[in-house]
Amino acid sequence: TEKDGLIHGLSAQELQLLAEQCFEAKTKAYCPYSLFRVGASLLLNTSSPTTSASHIITGANVENASYPVGTCAERVAMGSAIMAGHRLGSFKAVGVSTDIADFCSPCGMCRQFLREFLGLDTPVFMFNKEGTWIVRTMGELLPLSFGPDVLPPRE
Amino acid sequence: TEKDGLIHGLSAQELQLLAEQCFEAKTKAYCPYSLFRVGASLLLNTSSPTTSASHIITGANVENASYPVGTCAERVAMGSAIMAGHRLGSFKAVGVSTDIADFCSPCGMCRQFLREFLGLDTPVFMFNKEGTWIVRTMGELLPLSFGPDVLPPRE
Amino acid sequence: TEKDGLIHGLSAQELQLLAEQCFEAKTKAYCPYSLFRVGASLLLNTSSPTTSASHIITGANVENASYPVGTCAERVAMGSAIMAGHRLGSFKAVGVSTDIADFCSPCGMCRQFLREFLGLDTPVFMFNKEGTWIVRTMGELLPLSFGPDVLPPRE
Amino acid sequence: TEKDGLIHGLSAQELQLLAEQCFEAKTKAYCPYSLFRVGASLLLNTSSPTTSASHIITGANVENASYPVGTCAERVAMGSAIMAGHRLGSFKAVGVSTDIADFCSPCGMCRQFLREFLGLDTPVFMFNKEGTWIVRTMGELLPLSFGPDVLPPRE
Ligand SMILES: [Zn+2]
Ligand SMILES: [Zn+2]
Ligand SMILES: [Zn+2]
Ligand SMILES: [Zn+2]
Repeated sequence: TEKDGLIHGLSAQELQLLAEQCFEAKTKAYCPYSLFRVGASLLLNTSSPTTSASHIITGANVENASYPVGTCAERVAMGSAIMAGHRLGSFKAVGVSTDIADFCSPCGMCRQFLREFLGLDTPVFMFNKEGTWIVRTMGELLPLSFGPDVLPPRE
Repeated sequence: TEKDGLIHGLSAQELQLLAEQCFEAKTKAYCPYSLFRVGASLLLNTSSPTTSASHIITGANVENASYPVGTCAERVAMGSAIMAGHRLGSFKAVGVSTDIADFCSPCGMCRQFLREFLGLDTPVFMFNKEGTWIVRTMGELLPLSFGPDVLPPRE
Repeated sequence: TEKDGLIHGLSAQELQLLAEQCFEAKTKAYCPYSLFRVGASLLLNTSSPTTSASHIITGANVENASYPVGTCAERVAMGSAIMAGHRLGSFKAVGVSTDIADFCSPCGMCRQFLREFLGLDTPVFMFNKEGTWIVRTMGELLPLSFGPDVLPPRE
Repeated sequence: TEKDGLIHGLSAQELQLLAEQCFEAKTKAYCPYSLFRVGASLLLNTSSPTTSASHIITGANVENASYPVGTCAERVAMGSAIMAGHRLGSFKAVGVSTDIADFCSPCGMCRQFLREFLGLDTPVFMFNKEGTWIVRTMGELLPLSFGPDVLPPRE
């Protein structure tokens, strides 16, 4: 998974930026009910090996007194990305960070939300509180998934 | 509801900006399943009577092949606002716009999501496709609602 | 609201049954995250003034480690009702009960879910832990709502 | 995967029942927006090799004019199961059926919802419209998932 000096397609600088930005995003979480902060970062394909923060879009979890009404970091980040005009093909990598020692993956709902816009080979980096990471592709996280191809758009 | 030249607390310029921005936001919608575009705008309390677009945060609906996994314009906008550090007390008004002749209100899920961060007297302007509007307060749209006060945060 | 001996259209026995059943339903709640039990009951229009429990369908909240993925008592009850073949026109009243002294209303998401199948004049009874209640109609709980009439079905 | 005459732990009769019941459940779907019917069935561990329908709990999708407010067949089925007192350890297999020629898997949100109550080795059978099936375990469908073990309950 490391070739040409790239880590799952990312330069060392890009991976560091992805990590820094999802850690920073976590500080914006509104999570008075779970006290479980999550940050997410999306690296755009327009980024270069020596990319800047302007090529990253971030999100944090936003909870609600009615728990099912809240939303997760990954979906907040992707919502902002869609608003910025990005679509399938725009994303190079995803980062997720929490405050626990384990590696925390996106919940199933977020995997489905992301899958609408990510290639199946897009890497999702999961950082623990120390900044150590594991990585899985979108397709690995949601095998046999269905997207726009299965339930075709209306027009 | 019009006193001191204000319309539900907004200057004419603020109301025009709120309208323009939720109409503009609508063009970013990803809605291949419903073909029903929705735009939302949040006016910040830091705005002045001759405010600029920088005091508005917007969102559009983002659908998913698994319909329940998608999200609405109002929640995308509020997610971005929370990421920007805004909280209860930050919001002066909400705007919602669609492509239909009727006035379309936020769905119940969005009313609950917004209620966590809006005062009960915050006005929600609903614009039809012509730009004509009706307005209701947060408290009118979700009477007898519960928020952080009923289900107290953990700490 | 009391005429012909009826309370919002229900006989005293029906109202007692509605209350008993949503209190009983509450005991089935799976809520290890909020520790906030909710029960819901749906009275069918096929019930008679001296109705039996077979004309009631109930639900309780089912939470999830990913909070937004959980669901509420009202939606569990209505899901079972739809499975039993009930649709718009089937429901005479809704009951909701919790363990707090205040009257707790359905969250906005549940109001929207219920609205698809309830008449706007259907009463929703909210019971506090003592069994005292307040009541609001579906239309009062979700004013200016939209349902199948606004976003028309596909066919 | 076939040993002792069992198919992923199920007898031929159990598997047939699982299939029949999720096909039957599909007919109860309320899906005027997607026109995409889904049925789900849950086989209880209390079933015997010559089990009866009473050991199966079913669900179908219930949509909403506000698409994100709707719910899926799998969650309706599991909601009913929780109401009936079942919990982690109660479930022997899951069945899902649709009207398409492809095998349709549970969406990510449902995988997360089910994961709270299924063992990671519980088989999920996905039936196409012809009744042919593929199977994956819960753990295969949601690798690296988190449940009550990661985000510990409150008490
Ligand atoms: Zn999530
Ligand atoms: Zn909404
Ligand atoms: Zn609810
Ligand atoms: Zn689903």
